[in-house]
Amino acid sequence: MTGSWLELPPDTGYGPANLPHGVFSTPGTAPRTGIAIGDRVLDLAAATGDDVHATGTLNAWLAQGPQVWAALRAQLVEWFTDESHRGDVEPHLLPRADVTMHLPIEVADYVDFYSSQHHAENLGAMFRPDSAALTPNWKHLPIGYHGRAGTVAVSGTPVVRPCGQRKAPAEDAPTFGPSQRLDIEAEVGFVVGVGSELGTAVPVGRFADHVFGVCLVNDWSSRDLQAWEYVPLGPFLGKSFLTSVSPWVVPLAALEAARVAPPTRDPQPLPYLRDDAEPWGLDISLEVRLNGEVLSRPPFDLMYWTPAQQLAHLTVNGASLRTGDLFASGTVSGPRADQRGSFIELSWGGREPLTLADGSTRTFLEDGDEVVLTASAPGPDGSRISFGEVTGRVEPARRD
Amino acid sequence: MTGSWLELPPDTGYGPANLPHGVFSTPGTAPRTGIAIGDRVLDLAAATGDDVHATGTLNAWLAQGPQVWAALRAQLVEWFTDESHRGDVEPHLLPRADVTMHLPIEVADYVDFYSSQHHAENLGAMFRPDSAALTPNWKHLPIGYHGRAGTVAVSGTPVVRPCGQRKAPAEDAPTFGPSQRLDIEAEVGFVVGVGSELGTAVPVGRFADHVFGVCLVNDWSSRDLQAWEYVPLGPFLGKSFLTSVSPWVVPLAALEAARVAPPTRDPQPLPYLRDDAEPWGLDISLEVRLNGEVLSRPPFDLMYWTPAQQLAHLTVNGASLRTGDLFASGTVSGPRADQRGSFIELSWGGREPLTLADGSTRTFLEDGDEVVLTASAPGPDGSRISFGEVTGRVEPARRD
Repeated sequence: MTGSWLELPPDTGYGPANLPHGVFSTPGTAPRTGIAIGDRVLDLAAATGDDVHATGTLNAWLAQGPQVWAALRAQLVEWFTDESHRGDVEPHLLPRADVTMHLPIEVADYVDFYSSQHHAENLGAMFRPDSAALTPNWKHLPIGYHGRAGTVAVSGTPVVRPCGQRKAPAEDAPTFGPSQRLDIEAEVGFVVGVGSELGTAVPVGRFADHVFGVCLVNDWSSRDLQAWEYVPLGPFLGKSFLTSVSPWVVPLAALEAARVAPPTRDPQPLPYLRDDAEPWGLDISLEVRLNGEVLSRPPFDLMYWTPAQQLAHLTVNGASLRTGDLFASGTVSGPRADQRGSFIELSWGGREPLTLADGSTRTFLEDGDEVVLTASAPGPDGSRISFGEVTGRVEPARRD
Repeated sequence: MTGSWLELPPDTGYGPANLPHGVFSTPGTAPRTGIAIGDRVLDLAAATGDDVHATGTLNAWLAQGPQVWAALRAQLVEWFTDESHRGDVEPHLLPRADVTMHLPIEVADYVDFYSSQHHAENLGAMFRPDSAALTPNWKHLPIGYHGRAGTVAVSGTPVVRPCGQRKAPAEDAPTFGPSQRLDIEAEVGFVVGVGSELGTAVPVGRFADHVFGVCLVNDWSSRDLQAWEYVPLGPFLGKSFLTSVSPWVVPLAALEAARVAPPTRDPQPLPYLRDDAEPWGLDISLEVRLNGEVLSRPPFDLMYWTPAQQLAHLTVNGASLRTGDLFASGTVSGPRADQRGSFIELSWGGREPLTLADGSTRTFLEDGDEVVLTASAPGPDGSRISFGEVTGRVEPARRD
């Protein structure tokens, strides 16, 4: 898996060790599955002649399961590293700059977790200043909730500033209008390929039997809507207007070199959440950029709960999985101020505005702002695995 | 719309004024759309020859919108009331007792509201005894949250008792095991036929342009799992193991005679929630039966927030709708003890066990218990519109 006849630069994040899957189109053609390799995309439908890659989403292929995933991966590695395949493969490579990317999966259910201890402590301190920063359940289970699957959209989808109700503590009654505290949440998402039966749990050790891969998630959030609505049943309109995902799904198989031990869990969790045998900590380095300027670098390796624990928890009550289920980590924040994955943390609830390179300041997002999340992880032999990016530009509210 | 050559009994809830849509099959045949009429079902795919009714869900037809819904309804009324059609129609009628019913829609997103003031006050008093029963936001917006669409199942699906974490206040740490407080929530659900665009709101007055019809919902709930997990992000595993829906979707068009004024809202809600021009209060009478015995009769006409307000709230932040979206009212409870739509209310948190006709007592559901929810509403000319039923029997937990 070292060299490739593609003569990729040594620092490419899209070498034969990555091979992320996505859905692309070119002008006048239908969306179909592609594989990112260097600065190109392999038209997988054309290269394989398999219609399962021509459906416009990854779902049908994901449902075929880990053996099929592994077999295709082995074939792709051979194609890209053995020059004897060049003549067959090269005609199906397109410049990535020339294609339009689409939502890679038809999202079945979307679940968002809350698994960064630093993020949960920061938010707890701001939203519930009179209580302990972590709720009593936080270290016993990966807290999560269902989000709106229908508003999960691909990177680049405009972020229309949401309207809604908000009420400052000092006000008597709520008012209606555009959100004044529009925020991001820098997250990592996990894509379920193989479903499960109603009434059965998926143990921690079966994570890779169900989850195909990883994408980046920006769970756009309206903090003023959220603060007024979320007691007692959780976030609703403060989150449901848009969740953006990166177009490329990086296979778990590409992340073997990125696996690390998760933080020590204290207290020891209940047996169904123990992951000593096969932990799924992942050394993914995120970067948050606003209008081109790096604001923070959240470290995923510090997440308290791993995606394998999240999946085990999600299903321990017998809830079934479906192909296309997406679950996200929750905002990734580290202990340092420059490792925070949301503006509410970066500006400490709006009380400590950020000063940007151009001299302007920010507490939350302004119309016209563009946020880009990127990430990478260690690959084999010193290489890097790139997750690409998830972007969005804020547009003004459509009513007020 | 008075008589029918079908010679239906006067008290049928399935006369030509109802015409609920569902998906059925007979042994060896594929699921397809049917219309309930008397004690029979019309094979709509066969009767119309239209493949849109042979897809196994209502979704493709629902997406065609209100004009198509109305045109089919007019045709069905003519078929069932004008005896000249008898020869064409009768061959496509099957006894309902002979068919298997399926989930009528492929559920896109599932949202559950919390719109009964009596239920919210009861739950608030039990879950948060040290605070006001209603949270400060309750009378300003219809509180809701997203549930798990993938575990919405048709009536009759076994209710496997969920396992999970629970912690009594007096305990130091959570324990794992089968839920000890398995409950029901008697609700009414609304099925979206026509989607909406991301970034646009659906005003109260456009409710019937998007919503096709109404079903019954039993949002099975594990109160011990819920109580431990739900702060701060809301219910998750306490709800996600199963939500059962009735197989027949009653068109809004069948409910004109059931429309009533909703309760007076005080304080006046914000303008986007005002419904004076076209209120959608509905006089639906529910009934909760346990093992054949009537436990309560929750009145839907007392719901504080109507489904039109719920839809307007759900979309006011620009969240888009999709065909197949399902939103439910939240537990329907009236002011009296025999109008409560959940066991946690009927047994007041388990402190006041119910005594059943056989002399046994119940706080929450026991293995083997069967719950049946039924409902009806006024139809034209003194007739009744039946919603059928949603049932489920509790099976023992599969691990402990």
